[in-house]
This record gives sequence, C-alpha cells and structure tokens, in this order.
Amino acid sequence: MATKTKPPGTREAILERAVDLASTEGLEGLTIGRLASDMGLSKSGLFGHFGSKEELQIATIEHAARRFVGEVVEPVYRSTVEGPERLRALVDRYLDHLEGEVFPGGCFWAAASAEFDGRPGPVRDRVRDGTAAWLAELERQADAAGAEDPHQLAFELHALAAGANQRFQLFGDREAFDQARRGIARLLP
Amino acid sequence: MATKTKPPGTREAILERAVDLASTEGLEGLTIGRLASDMGLSKSGLFGHFGSKEELQIATIEHAARRFVGEVVEPVYRSTVEGPERLRALVDRYLDHLEGEVFPGGCFWAAASAEFDGRPGPVRDRVRDGTAAWLAELERQADAAGAEDPHQLAFELHALAAGANQRFQLFGDREAFDQARRGIARLLP
Repeated sequence: MATKTKPPGTREAILERAVDLASTEGLEGLTIGRLASDMGLSKSGLFGHFGSKEELQIATIEHAARRFVGEVVEPVYRSTVEGPERLRALVDRYLDHLEGEVFPGGCFWAAASAEFDGRPGPVRDRVRDGTAAWLAELERQADAAGAEDPHQLAFELHALAAGANQRFQLFGDREAFDQARRGIARLLP
Repeated sequence: MATKTKPPGTREAILERAVDLASTEGLEGLTIGRLASDMGLSKSGLFGHFGSKEELQIATIEHAARRFVGEVVEPVYRSTVEGPERLRALVDRYLDHLEGEVFPGGCFWAAASAEFDGRPGPVRDRVRDGTAAWLAELERQADAAGAEDPHQLAFELHALAAGANQRFQLFGDREAFDQARRGIARLLP
C-alpha cells in the first residue's frame, strides 16, 4: 500500500518518513540530523518539532501505532462483519499489511521490539504499549468470535504472523505468509 | 544454563563473550575496541584473532551456531529417543534453551535476524545459514516423526517458539513459554 504524500515539512510528513527510516535502520539510527538531511530540512526546524532524539523516537512509535490502526484495525471496524468473520477479517488485513511491506523494513513493531527489548526506558515502554494493545485487540476479537481460549488464540495468531514476517524479512520468502495463513485457518473458530 | 568458563584471552573465550555482548547490544555494536575493553585485552591482540569487525561478527555467528548445536541438538542425538519422541525432545530443549536465557539478550538468532535482515552481505548470509539449518533440522525430525506436512510443522513450531521469545524479551513474561508449549503440544504427532 503506497503511503499518502503529506505536505513537506509538516510534523505529519516528518513522522511518515521517520517511521520508514526506523523500520529499515532501527529507532536508534533515527537521529534529528539524519532525518533532517534525509528530508532536506534544517536541524533547527526539526528541533522545533522534537526537542530530543528520544522525543523523536517516541513520536515515531506513536505515529506507527496510528498508521497500524488506520490500515489494519479501522477498516475492519467500518465494515459490518462481526464475531468470527470480524476476527478473520482482522487477521487477513494484518497478514496483508505485513506481506505488503507497508514499512520498507517489514513489521515496525518486530524491529523496534528486537532493538529495544533489552533497554528499559520510555522508548521501550511505548513499544510495549503498542504490542500489548494489539495483543489485547486480538484477544477481544477472539473472545467475540467465541474462541474457547481467547488469550491462547491471540498468542498463536500473533506468533504465526510474526514468524512469517521474520522469515520473509530474512529470506525474502513469501511462502512463509502462505504457511502462516494455513496455520491460522486451522486455528480460527 | 551457565556458560562454561574458558581460559581468558583464547579465541574461544573471546567468542563466548562476543556472543553474549551481541545478544544484548546487537552485532553492529560488536566492535573490536568494545570487546577488547570489555575483556581487558589489547585491541592489537584482538586484531590478531580477527582482522576486522566483519570477521569478528562472522566468527561470533559461527560460535553461536556451535553453541546452539551443542546445547539443543547434540544432547537429543546422544539420547536413544527416535521418531515422535525425538522431535518432542528437540522442541522441549529448544524452549528450555530460550527460556533459560542462555544468551542474556534472548535468542541470538532472532536478534541478529532483526538487525541484519535488511543489510545484504556476508553477515546476513551467515544469519540466514544458521536459521535455515535449524528450520531444516526441525523439518527432518518432523518427517522422521511421521508428520503429515513436515515443512508446515517446522514453520509452526519455529513461529510459536519465536513468538514466545519475542514476548518474553519485551514483557519479561514467562507465561509466553507456557502458551508456546500448549500450542506445540497440539501440533505434535
């Protein structure tokens, strides 16, 4: 899915680019200087939007979360499907999102999680919050779909999709998504 | 599982430490200078073992692979179990290995994969080789266990374990391993 172009220099446009950069080069590589030179903006202009590297990282994570909700969750809520159909639609969109490489470096959350899981602080806390919110959403929809053990089902759905993302990123092997879809089809009520 | 102490200053001892450092700080943070100061050795001494950062990274990956084989694969081959019992033993040791935090930063391969999947070159190739070898071993044992679709089973076993590792690393939540074990128990023949 192509990213919609935002007016250059706005906070929104800067964060769009920051999410893409972070997904390929890591959140730690995301400095105000790097982002300014990449976008042809002044460092002082960027400092006006984000006072520090950490603020930029946090704003980038929050933007990635809004993008994920906008692309995966909201379209499903706007449709009329409910119960098991809604869970299936949500998981389908999730896999399409991962396979479509919306972020050039693959799943933003998997990359950010691997990068920050060993570094306590506000950046890791935001990565946790985003991941926890998605697991909770899967569990809520698994419950509404009548799953016997929604908590377990949410874990397995997430693991299969994350496993496909990991293999696709490392080997460039789209078959992994078919394998995830096969595993998930067997799990869904 | 505690790492056995190796005579200090040997190539073996240096690589033991390098694997631990890489699992917490990333392979990219693994410089000869960083490792030398960490171990109280001279940079020139380390350059004698490894001519460049890239050589050090590759030697570290190869050492991590030997450690994984020694701790997960070989004990199962030394035992007399076969067929489905061997597959179960292999997967049990794999989960114990991940849960035991043999590497302080969690699964070395998951971290290295997330870090290098977008960076083509000899380091990424070694990470691919190690991951592919493990998937192939799981598939071989799934086949010997009489699985209907060994390729699919290997994918799902790996994804559930990787999902548990990811959640444990991010949330410090051991329940994820129980969830992986429950999912795996249902999959095994």
